[in-house]
Formats: sequence, C-alpha cells, structure tokens
Amino acid sequence: MISTRYGALESADALEAALREIGAERYHIHHPFHRLLHTGKLDRGQVQAWALNRYYYQSRIPMKDAALLSRCKDRALRREWLVRLLDHDGMGDQEGGIVRWLRLCSGLGLDPDYVISEEGILPATKFAVDAYVRFVRERTLLEAVASSLTELFAPKIHEERIPGLLKHYSFVSEEMVAYFRRRLDQAPRDAGFALAYVREHADTAEKRLGVAQALIFKCDVLWAQLDALHYAYVLGGGIPIGAFVPEGQPSVRAA
Amino acid sequence: MISTRYGALESADALEAALREIGAERYHIHHPFHRLLHTGKLDRGQVQAWALNRYYYQSRIPMKDAALLSRCKDRALRREWLVRLLDHDGMGDQEGGIVRWLRLCSGLGLDPDYVISEEGILPATKFAVDAYVRFVRERTLLEAVASSLTELFAPKIHEERIPGLLKHYSFVSEEMVAYFRRRLDQAPRDAGFALAYVREHADTAEKRLGVAQALIFKCDVLWAQLDALHYAYVLGGGIPIGAFVPEGQPSVRAA
Repeated sequence: MISTRYGALESADALEAALREIGAERYHIHHPFHRLLHTGKLDRGQVQAWALNRYYYQSRIPMKDAALLSRCKDRALRREWLVRLLDHDGMGDQEGGIVRWLRLCSGLGLDPDYVISEEGILPATKFAVDAYVRFVRERTLLEAVASSLTELFAPKIHEERIPGLLKHYSFVSEEMVAYFRRRLDQAPRDAGFALAYVREHADTAEKRLGVAQALIFKCDVLWAQLDALHYAYVLGGGIPIGAFVPEGQPSVRAA
Repeated sequence: MISTRYGALESADALEAALREIGAERYHIHHPFHRLLHTGKLDRGQVQAWALNRYYYQSRIPMKDAALLSRCKDRALRREWLVRLLDHDGMGDQEGGIVRWLRLCSGLGLDPDYVISEEGILPATKFAVDAYVRFVRERTLLEAVASSLTELFAPKIHEERIPGLLKHYSFVSEEMVAYFRRRLDQAPRDAGFALAYVREHADTAEKRLGVAQALIFKCDVLWAQLDALHYAYVLGGGIPIGAFVPEGQPSVRAA
C-alpha cells in the first residue's frame, strides 16, 4: 500500500481528495508575493517584473501543450487538448491569451518587443518553466496531463486578482485584465477534463501517486517563480545582471 | 561583427578576456550568501541547508560529464574528460569527490541517507541543476565544454572557503573540507584543458559568442542556487513544503 502525506490513494475519490489537498497547501495563491500583488502592496516596477516574468511562462504553455499532443496516440485526447493551443495562440479572428498577456505588459509600460525578446527574464524563471515543458515532454502521458491540474485552483486566484489589481493600482485598466477574465471560463473547462482523465486512467495506486507527484511538481514550478520575483524585486536579494531593472532601481549586482 | 557587453570576440584572446570578465562579474563568489557563509555569519542549520542543496549539484556533475562523453566522437577529448568522472565518482581505492561531499554533510549532522534521498532539496535547486545537465545534453559540444569554465574561478572561491569555514565554524573540521582541498588541484587542470579547447575550436565569432553565453548560463545556474538558499533560509522567504527544515526552524509554508 502506498502511504503519502495525502493519504493512501486507494481510489479515484481518494486521489481527487489528495489533489485538492495538495492545491490547498501548495498552490501559489498562498505565496507572499501574490498577497502583496493582490492587495496593492507592490509598486509599478514590481508589477512590471511580475508581468514580464510571467510572460515567459505564458509563452511556453502552447509549447508544452504541443509536446503533449506530439506524444499522444489517442485522437480523442488530442481533440480535447487542442483547444488549449487555440486558447493561447489564437487562430483567425481569435487573438488568443498570449496577445492578451502582451496587452497587459504594454499597459504596464513595458515594450512588447522587449518582453518577447525574453532578455530581461530572471534565470530562475527560465529554469522553472523549462523544467515544466520538459516534464510534459519526458514523463508519462498521464503525468503530463496531471501536471495541468493546477487549473483546478486557478479560478479562485483570478477572482482575487481581477478586483485586486483594478482596485489597488491606478495604472491597471479593465482592458489589461482581459486575460484573467477569459481564463475564468477556460480554466475550469480544461481542469474538469483533465481531472476526469486522471480519475479514469490512474487505475493503480502507483499511477495515482504519479498523478499526485505531478501536481506537486507543478505547484513547485509556479511557487519557485514567485520566490525568485520576491527575492529579486521585493526583499532586495539583488537583480541578476541582464535581468529587468525597474526604472530608478539599481541592479545590486552591477559591476 | 558581433558586439557584446564583453567586446566583439574577434579572436581567441578576445574570447578569453571576455570569459574572464564574465567570471569577474557573475561568478557566485560574489553572491551575498557566499559572503555570509565564508565570514561565519550563518548558523549550523543554514550551513546544513547549503551543503544539502549543493549535494544535488555534486550528484549531477558525473551525469552531465557522462552526457558530454555520450555525444563526443573525439576519443582524445573523451580520454581527457573521463578524468572528471573518476574525480567525482572514484574507482577502486579512490573514493571520489561525492563521498567527500557526503562526509562534509555527515560532519554537519545530516544523515547521508536523507541527503542521498534528495527529499529535502529545494525545487529551485533541482530546476537550476537539471537545466545544466540538459544544457550539456542538448547544446553543441563546444557549448557543453564551455559551460564547465566556471572552474577557471573555482580555486579562488575554495581558497576563501577553506579557511573561512575552519575559522568561523566550530562544527567544521579539517576532514570536512577535504573536498575543497582536492578541488584546488583538480579544477585548474580541468579548466586549463577546457579553456584551451574552446580557444582552439571556437573559430568563428558566432561560436565564440556561444562559448561566452554558455559561461553566462552556467554562472546563472550557480547564482540561482544561492538565491534560493538565501531566500528560503536567510531572508525568511519561507521554506517550501517538503524541503529541509533546520532544527527549531518552522516551515513558513506549513499548513
């Protein structure tokens, strides 16, 4: 019998309970940086640093979804998963989520070309996000699907973020939060599908453990990104050479 | 012509000058966490956290060196590089550097089985170190060799570290710093070879740029590991659930 911090995972219901407990404990809604962001405690430069670094994550989501598609023999799963690529990249008249994210960055005063160049991204952001893409590329398909399950907890963070940003930051407009409004519908649909998938396909305790560990891994990926932002831009740990420096803030590591 | 922060890289000499400048600016000897470590400003739990996380890096070095060997058609280069595997893993009577590192961990009061289990490692450490192994696996052989060039700057950090640890921490003994004493000879030999190799094989400005960028990448890998330690164990950013918690220190994220 497998025993974990989250129970023995002896059934699909036990797995789902464990997944919800993992989220309750480890989802980045609890990170101090998000609390600062959502309650208006950051300055414009710090919000810029967040949007810029989070862009790198957004930019890799369609790549990780394509990686999943590329190893999936199940046409039904591919058809279902394809909608994620459309959501993020758009097609035809649909602009997609990445364009909405870039609009948030522009609204915050960041040059979109600079954002897209990825020049100012913290190395720690790249290490964490790249680890996610590779996880989806290299682990089992079940674990790859499971690593998307942080979306189970996304609506709550968006419900907190949208009014938080609009209320506390004069430089944030309704148009700039369009990305998050859109995710309020998209994320539950995707998460519902992924949850049903892992409930059905994780048919041994070992597979259920793999699913739980995939979600823990993904929570770590999200959490580590905020650690790095908090360290570099709030706690004064220093901004790595080459990374984004908010106006008026010297890079601690400058030679 | 290629123009970088470190010059135009128009020759092997220009490349070497750039590499030395990159090290002077970005090598982790300058990181605030190392300054604290070497000047006796950390407590035992913080030194344990450092040794534990650094173990993960040590443990992956032979794997990245094997990755390099596995894609190297040049027998002369393989023969030269093989010595690194011997240095770290040992053979026959030679115990190798990883055993010496584990002895440091034991001396600090960490259970070697716990260290080897990798359970307490910070996620950010894993993301950074894994990025290094994959870099060596996926980039050109020249870039893979170049990413080892931080060893050019290692003797200086060891010369600072050995007396620093022995002087400031009553719980550090001569036996525990054996790893670093050994590296004083090994690192310059390896770095000298790698430097000669990149000087010879980086025969276009573009290749020289790749070499410089590989060293920058590697400096980022080392730096990010200290950022994560500094954040979690010194600045109070919080210890991720599951990561090592020094005796008497509560995990900030505990549920």
